[in-house]
Amino acid sequence: MIRYNMKLTAILAMFIPFSLSGFSQQHKNDPNKLLILQSQGSFTVGGTVIQNPGNYDATKFDNWKPYPEGQTYHGDHAYVFYQIPDKSRPLPLVFLHGAGSSSKVWETTPDGRDGFQNIFLRRRFSTYLVDQPRRGKAGRSTLAASIDPTADEQMWYEIFRIGVWPNFNKGVQFPQDAESLNQFFRQMTPNTGPFDTEIITNSMSALFDKIGSGILVTHSQGGLPGWLTGIKSDKVKAIVAYEPGTYPFPKGELPEPISGLTGVLKGVEVSMDDFMKLTRIPIVMYFGDYIPDAPDAVTNDLGAENWRTRLALGRLFVETMNRHGGDATLVELPKIGIYGNTHFLMSDLNNIEIADQLSKWLKEKGLD
Amino acid sequence: MIRYNMKLTAILAMFIPFSLSGFSQQHKNDPNKLLILQSQGSFTVGGTVIQNPGNYDATKFDNWKPYPEGQTYHGDHAYVFYQIPDKSRPLPLVFLHGAGSSSKVWETTPDGRDGFQNIFLRRRFSTYLVDQPRRGKAGRSTLAASIDPTADEQMWYEIFRIGVWPNFNKGVQFPQDAESLNQFFRQMTPNTGPFDTEIITNSMSALFDKIGSGILVTHSQGGLPGWLTGIKSDKVKAIVAYEPGTYPFPKGELPEPISGLTGVLKGVEVSMDDFMKLTRIPIVMYFGDYIPDAPDAVTNDLGAENWRTRLALGRLFVETMNRHGGDATLVELPKIGIYGNTHFLMSDLNNIEIADQLSKWLKEKGLD
Repeated sequence: MIRYNMKLTAILAMFIPFSLSGFSQQHKNDPNKLLILQSQGSFTVGGTVIQNPGNYDATKFDNWKPYPEGQTYHGDHAYVFYQIPDKSRPLPLVFLHGAGSSSKVWETTPDGRDGFQNIFLRRRFSTYLVDQPRRGKAGRSTLAASIDPTADEQMWYEIFRIGVWPNFNKGVQFPQDAESLNQFFRQMTPNTGPFDTEIITNSMSALFDKIGSGILVTHSQGGLPGWLTGIKSDKVKAIVAYEPGTYPFPKGELPEPISGLTGVLKGVEVSMDDFMKLTRIPIVMYFGDYIPDAPDAVTNDLGAENWRTRLALGRLFVETMNRHGGDATLVELPKIGIYGNTHFLMSDLNNIEIADQLSKWLKEKGLD
Repeated sequence: MIRYNMKLTAILAMFIPFSLSGFSQQHKNDPNKLLILQSQGSFTVGGTVIQNPGNYDATKFDNWKPYPEGQTYHGDHAYVFYQIPDKSRPLPLVFLHGAGSSSKVWETTPDGRDGFQNIFLRRRFSTYLVDQPRRGKAGRSTLAASIDPTADEQMWYEIFRIGVWPNFNKGVQFPQDAESLNQFFRQMTPNTGPFDTEIITNSMSALFDKIGSGILVTHSQGGLPGWLTGIKSDKVKAIVAYEPGTYPFPKGELPEPISGLTGVLKGVEVSMDDFMKLTRIPIVMYFGDYIPDAPDAVTNDLGAENWRTRLALGRLFVETMNRHGGDATLVELPKIGIYGNTHFLMSDLNNIEIADQLSKWLKEKGLD
């Protein structure tokens, strides 16, 4: 009987077109299957060193009070945790988180399922998870910061399109139990220094120098540093951006700012030479659900509004890319029948389906 | 021929006393061997929630300015990354870092070798690596903090007994190339809120509630929260402390404070009931090299002085433990012929030998 079923599945599989093969992809992600790694480890990369003037003198030590004369401070590096699976594919995936996040967002989901780290390890991709400079385990910053516990989670709940507090968006792919929301909020972690795109792209570029060619996967605020890393390093062979915050445009082609309830969104001007570098690699962007397709505000929903403007500018970015010979694809998930996604597509309840979309694209582009 | 060699090894092994079996232990740590995991993932545990008075009102959103009325803030949790190897031993190792560190210190060493995370996974122990509340990826604190990039690394170089800046201690088990020191400094990461032993032990105790029985491995400042977690949770089945900062003593038995160049070291008074809880589990402490055995300061070396007092108080702790029926062992590595260790024994050049010591102790205590 078991043998009969297996045969039937094999026969049926021959008649299933690729786009419907999510079932077999899911089987590759059996969370009960062993993870077989060739190696794993961590390191820091990039950064600068403060060298204080004067001569170091240990006799100035006085009950742990600072005595910085002649001392150094290493900061502004990224922290990276990598895992190389057995029989790994040639190009690794390098994951860069968004605002208020660390590399945690690619690990276990708030409800305890495999995140993209495990999902893509099971698909034999090497993974590099980054804590950007001044975040998470890369906490040493060469500039000072004040960290205040300002209550802000209901705002983020809305901005991240889980719902309009305290309600969940209808059909949302977010678990609705209290512990999942608890875990979701606790994966946030503050800046330990000012956010600095230049410092982040320097460390990301140094990372690619160290590891060689790879595919950069960004989320949210990580989007802009991602695009600029693609400009800075020719070792970035593709960029995958989940709901990026903003985009580069060539000098003279910057679109009009787009106004919305959460602010005025602008692109970032770069030289035509730099912009053209991005046209030489395949790019894909994914946006989830609950984002109105309208030129102006049609709702008071902070999340809908925040991503309406960023999606609108994203359309212009993709159009500009492709007009200049680029290979950029924008996937609006509801338009291909995938509904209910929040801003955290990679940890939503249907994240296997989201991962399948990426696997399909990587295969199409010959990147797997 | 291969079969013959295997047999010969097996026969020879019968004649090799356990203490000389380091060679075979090292073979278990071949960094080129596959790491086979049953599962891996991450979660946060413990912590509290700030609930601001008032009602949440999204229409108060004004260009990302704080509007905390009615909003929440989750903080003071620990972050945990776990890996369960295939055919794992019954008791996992739970690793708690020290001051200025994150769980990075148990991962890859500054010169790129396996740290205790990989070493003990290869020995089939499950590992739980903790970022304590207000550190690393557990950055959200319910109390504010200011983070200043105060140059302090030459001080830490001495405190951590790498040497007296800019010299290395003679025979030190620390790599002497510039990049290793660069990586070493960059693994430091600041507090994102005040250090709070109670908050740390609450989250550690909640971690043991979640995962069940385990062996707690602490480093440095993690020592005191470690002892107090052992008091708080009966799921802590053993404590391994690498150069702990201080120790609990029963009420009325607190030793006289010990003065040294880096301050006055005191024990922490706990009730006799609480102290007795620690006597019911096996405890081992390891101290490295360059620590003078003297009642008073004999050197201006900050590292020697800092650990002279902590080792001296450690001796009194072990003596007090065992006088009350405990099972505490103090291992001063130079006294058993292991030389050159800094304060970071678990990442020193001889960390396989340090791990072998722990493996031997765990075996003796029936904990493996």
